Amino acid sequence: MTRRYHQVKRTSVRQRRELIILQWEMDSKSIVLAQRRLGSLESRTKFLKTIYSSKILGLSTSAKMSSKFKNAKRIEGLDSNVWIEFTKLAADPSVVNLGQGLPDISLPMYIKEELSKIATTDSLNQYTRGFGHPSLVKALSCLYEKLYQNQINPDKEILVTVGAYGSLFNAIHGLIDEGDEVIIIVPFYDCYEPMVRMAGATPVFVPLRSKPVDGRKWSSSDWTLDPQELASKFNSKTKAIILNTPHNPLGKVYTREELQVIADLCIKYDTLCISDEVYEWLVYAGNKHLKIATFPGMWERTITIGSAGKTFSVTGWKLGWSIGPDHLIKHLQTVQQNTVYTCATPLQEALAHAFWIDIKRMDDPECYFNSLPKELELKRDRMVHLLESIGLKPIVPDGGYFIIADVSLMDADLSDMENNNEPYDYKFVKWMTKNKKLSAIPVSAFCNSETKLQFEKFVRFCFIKKDSTLDAAEEIFKAWSRQKS
Amino acid sequence: MTRRYHQVKRTSVRQRRELIILQWEMDSKSIVLAQRRLGSLESRTKFLKTIYSSKILGLSTSAKMSSKFKNAKRIEGLDSNVWIEFTKLAADPSVVNLGQGLPDISLPMYIKEELSKIATTDSLNQYTRGFGHPSLVKALSCLYEKLYQNQINPDKEILVTVGAYGSLFNAIHGLIDEGDEVIIIVPFYDCYEPMVRMAGATPVFVPLRSKPVDGRKWSSSDWTLDPQELASKFNSKTKAIILNTPHNPLGKVYTREELQVIADLCIKYDTLCISDEVYEWLVYAGNKHLKIATFPGMWERTITIGSAGKTFSVTGWKLGWSIGPDHLIKHLQTVQQNTVYTCATPLQEALAHAFWIDIKRMDDPECYFNSLPKELELKRDRMVHLLESIGLKPIVPDGGYFIIADVSLMDADLSDMENNNEPYDYKFVKWMTKNKKLSAIPVSAFCNSETKLQFEKFVRFCFIKKDSTLDAAEEIFKAWSRQKS
Repeated sequence: MTRRYHQVKRTSVRQRRELIILQWEMDSKSIVLAQRRLGSLESRTKFLKTIYSSKILGLSTSAKMSSKFKNAKRIEGLDSNVWIEFTKLAADPSVVNLGQGLPDISLPMYIKEELSKIATTDSLNQYTRGFGHPSLVKALSCLYEKLYQNQINPDKEILVTVGAYGSLFNAIHGLIDEGDEVIIIVPFYDCYEPMVRMAGATPVFVPLRSKPVDGRKWSSSDWTLDPQELASKFNSKTKAIILNTPHNPLGKVYTREELQVIADLCIKYDTLCISDEVYEWLVYAGNKHLKIATFPGMWERTITIGSAGKTFSVTGWKLGWSIGPDHLIKHLQTVQQNTVYTCATPLQEALAHAFWIDIKRMDDPECYFNSLPKELELKRDRMVHLLESIGLKPIVPDGGYFIIADVSLMDADLSDMENNNEPYDYKFVKWMTKNKKLSAIPVSAFCNSETKLQFEKFVRFCFIKKDSTLDAAEEIFKAWSRQKS
Repeated sequence: MTRRYHQVKRTSVRQRRELIILQWEMDSKSIVLAQRRLGSLESRTKFLKTIYSSKILGLSTSAKMSSKFKNAKRIEGLDSNVWIEFTKLAADPSVVNLGQGLPDISLPMYIKEELSKIATTDSLNQYTRGFGHPSLVKALSCLYEKLYQNQINPDKEILVTVGAYGSLFNAIHGLIDEGDEVIIIVPFYDCYEPMVRMAGATPVFVPLRSKPVDGRKWSSSDWTLDPQELASKFNSKTKAIILNTPHNPLGKVYTREELQVIADLCIKYDTLCISDEVYEWLVYAGNKHLKIATFPGMWERTITIGSAGKTFSVTGWKLGWSIGPDHLIKHLQTVQQNTVYTCATPLQEALAHAFWIDIKRMDDPECYFNSLPKELELKRDRMVHLLESIGLKPIVPDGGYFIIADVSLMDADLSDMENNNEPYDYKFVKWMTKNKKLSAIPVSAFCNSETKLQFEKFVRFCFIKKDSTLDAAEEIFKAWSRQKS
């Protein structure tokens, strides 16, 4: 018995003392008493459980466990996540949260009312069709037929998923094999890389690079791919490229010429295109969102991903969709039926109703697809002005609801930050959240390990926020700036 | 140009004729005209799209595509699904649907009302914590602490998932590696096998076998595992066993002695236990649901899975949860953050409210955990009586909301059924749905290919149905029985 105790590591003197008592209780067959004690030893419950069962079964499970109960290889090293880390930080209610893309503006009344009504209908709280609720795929096909100017089969060419996140996962796990290469444009929405790695494939990174701006405003359109550099990443192993337009975090809206370069390479190398277009409606004056799937030769090789969260500002509904040809969508469907099977019915039904309301008034400024970008453009301009007024040079986004700025000029004493191995922006955001009660997201979170240094002076601010939130952020920035001067 | 056309397979004479016209239009540079024609050729849109873009880009993508755009290997052969096939069949509104486990009883008022109220709060329609909405994991920990008689850390030992389906997926993909073996008890909920295969692991099957019943009622408890046979399936490659109690489709509720045999083997071979307990509250008089995770030595190796759909009869909410030790749950969390990231906020909040209502009155017969099994027990008894009255011998379930019966005695002429390679029960259910307007689920769908024959005379009926639905089923059975005699 004594030998077995030595196998248990990291026990405190107090824990060892408890064990001696426990040993006595068990040796004297007072199992009931031991159980009662177990109930009361709150902080050490799990530790004691192991000992307790080892005793009864004559096994040292805690010692054996470490070798066999580790994670599956496919998720090795994929456990860190910027949202989990920084959302936790921003949870303090005194913090003004410009971090995660979490709208705090008023939602359209009709989307809330539709869900509120639907919730009371029994049958709409039960399972629906696995690949998408019939009324929702019908609404989506009607909307996207207008945008693609072509027929879309609601049953075979659309798949409703658990958010755009679920669409990305289904596409990658349905189509990408171990050993494939997948091109990812840096910076990138952070889940692209671990999803590709989880599929056993190799991400191949290519950066957006900025032209010199010589005193004029810095725009997301100054960030472009070098066509030669992009071409150099394609080879016979390239299975797909992941495109994101409008781009998160830069706010870049790819032009027709830029998309044509990508399309030509996809066709030349017979490559898939996974096009994340969740901000498709959020494009500002002078820009137009284009769908690469409508380019000649691209429909049959493109999965286009959309999001209810971004379209109707209901990020908590976790509904997204993939659109593409039957011969690709069917593989995403197979992944879905072996992972989550189906999506929530009442949310899908409410979303379908909301879509019908706005599909019928698409030329009307009241249509949410038109009114939301107008509302956000004012917020973007306010953020640009605010950041400039305190001496920063933001990159003015052409789309999306994020703005990034080089914050290295801001006065911040990071010398006492705990983890000195972290990139500058990680430390800066942690410092700012703690000391200035303002949160944001470090842009190096959107980079692979080799390119983090290029972007570590940038921080991303979210501006889909009500005026009072932006007022509070303004107060913080201005006080900070005064303190400096 | 002519050569390129020959590469396109399976074109009809009419399609070829259209191509000649299209060729002319393109050759004469009338691209606009060609585009208009493309819009009008509705049924062949996708076919023509390929040709059209091939022409413009000088590539025959349709010919090349087949080699590169196929599914990823991990989903090879996993595209068939019993629910998709039979739900489609039962969609005809004239069919009485006793197929999929889809409650059509009245839902508890408070669960609908909670969702209806929550829908109108802006902030509850936005993203929440990825591993579970704080108020929901708090409610779950409070409930399960009572059941486990032990502390459960809401943040580290509970993960909220997209249905119990999502929990199964996260557990298998977080913990099971290529080359591992996973023991599955036959019959089994159909997704276990493809999920294990998608992880690259090998399912090892062990059947429940029935004792002879000699004239007395046949009970789900007559179906048991042979301890020797079960032990023979464990070896050093065994990574996990998937347990399901109460069992779908048999309705078996495992006894303490049966669970102890499984627990002993799990400990002896240092194996995980994935315990699917979605019907945990649906247990009928004389039976008690036991949690294998509470057996000595089992907490640290068990993931226990629950379901909102089964607990509150809201299958369309797609919320489930995994409970287990931190050292296992953390790997399921990693899978979740790289697949769907988070679950729907308004549904999680409403579910938390519903739980608090029932947690506070757990000893009260009004508590849904108590009232639903009482309501269902009457329906079970009605179904038993009905099936017996037409000369069938159902297996009386001790739990769950399904009943299975050998239907080979029923008068059914399957000679003209199309697919003669299908098991008897597949043909029977298709025939019954078409000719008797009654749907069910073939039990061989819950078997691996080697054991389908053993169960192909059985059909599963769902009885979580309002009286009028059961009345309609009774009418059908009785008319069918009269016809026979």
